[in-house]
Amino acid sequence: MTERVDQLVNGGIKIIQSDEVFSFSLDAVLLADFAQVKRTDQVVDLCAGNGAVGLFLSQKTKETITMIELQEKLAEMAHRSVRLNHLENQINVLPIDLADASEFLGTDFADVVTCNPPYFVDQPQSTKNPNPYYAIARHELKTNLAAVLTTSARLLKTNGHFYMVHRPERLDEIMAKCVAARLAVKRLQFVYPKADREANMVLVDAIKDGRPNGVRVMPPIVAYTEQDEYTPQVKTILHGDDLTK
Amino acid sequence: MTERVDQLVNGGIKIIQSDEVFSFSLDAVLLADFAQVKRTDQVVDLCAGNGAVGLFLSQKTKETITMIELQEKLAEMAHRSVRLNHLENQINVLPIDLADASEFLGTDFADVVTCNPPYFVDQPQSTKNPNPYYAIARHELKTNLAAVLTTSARLLKTNGHFYMVHRPERLDEIMAKCVAARLAVKRLQFVYPKADREANMVLVDAIKDGRPNGVRVMPPIVAYTEQDEYTPQVKTILHGDDLTK
Repeated sequence: MTERVDQLVNGGIKIIQSDEVFSFSLDAVLLADFAQVKRTDQVVDLCAGNGAVGLFLSQKTKETITMIELQEKLAEMAHRSVRLNHLENQINVLPIDLADASEFLGTDFADVVTCNPPYFVDQPQSTKNPNPYYAIARHELKTNLAAVLTTSARLLKTNGHFYMVHRPERLDEIMAKCVAARLAVKRLQFVYPKADREANMVLVDAIKDGRPNGVRVMPPIVAYTEQDEYTPQVKTILHGDDLTK
Repeated sequence: MTERVDQLVNGGIKIIQSDEVFSFSLDAVLLADFAQVKRTDQVVDLCAGNGAVGLFLSQKTKETITMIELQEKLAEMAHRSVRLNHLENQINVLPIDLADASEFLGTDFADVVTCNPPYFVDQPQSTKNPNPYYAIARHELKTNLAAVLTTSARLLKTNGHFYMVHRPERLDEIMAKCVAARLAVKRLQFVYPKADREANMVLVDAIKDGRPNGVRVMPPIVAYTEQDEYTPQVKTILHGDDLTK
């Protein structure tokens, strides 16, 4: 298996990657940046993949981070990255179905749940990646949005925060299913690939049993300049300057 | 009463304004620009105010435009603007409650309904503008979001489009109440006062009885530069270049 170790410039975190099974992308970096995590917050990261989000968040909290990743090979990679960063005392990796998370971890305890879930509905006719690791990471083959939201609500304390990155085309479903799962959407942030293009990501911040008294739509994130380079805004996030805020 | 006549540079439309009762603002211009109206579309504009949205839309359709405005003084101003632009054969102004609109106009006939409604919930403790014209235009004293959406759905043909400008803080309510009113949200566009500020407007495009198969979040509109001037993007819209698209 062809692996490599990637490191964010100022973040100091090393992450084992393999294009054969999974590589984290801008989505994970933006999610970790968007999540407002205090130093005393207990964190659970669902659909953890190779552990990028949880590893980034270890720079924000000193409390326990639990990564849940169904795919054993990815969970094992995440675990090796945890050891590589000497974070085995802080970060646990559980290779389980997120539907079973509260049986392992209990309920109503997490301050923060994060998730970079599979984005695409499992439609029989849809084309999936022939690589099963990618297919499961991208399509709702093993879980789905409703399961992610109900599991997250179960793990969270009252007033705990749920942070997710997803696709804007599912915003109607996200809004409706958050309500159904007792998660009140408080902040949204849209990511536009370029200044004149439609958004291709949405960051969601919802509060368990929060009062539905208003959504804030945060400043736009524009990923690339017209010259196809990262914008200064995204460079700052990638270089980790913001990860300790 | 202190009135003036405003004219968009390239639009050619003249609009009677009075700061004492109502002046259209960027919201109306952006709504008229956002609305995709064909030359054969029958249009109803709810909460018409001094008629700005309907007047702008007369540059897109050649069919009938009906303005509904509860406040008689505003409806009368709108009517005088219609005459000033020699559009009395195309535009009707009805000084009625929008809840009665389908009794006057019938149901299931409009290709397009537009609305720039009062943005703020009528909370007993909220501060309202002492000027009653502004209070009614800004606060849900005489109508509310649910009434706007159900009335719009009643007026619209199947697959007709509803276009609204509103405040992002009510996005959760907008999404839920659109579903309840059989309006499927298809496009959203957020307006940010500056590139690094939270959105203060959202443009909504929903289809009556449309399939809920995906929301598009259009490119960001940034209203002002750091130097507090309109951005080139907004200047183009204001000058009317886009009003004929």
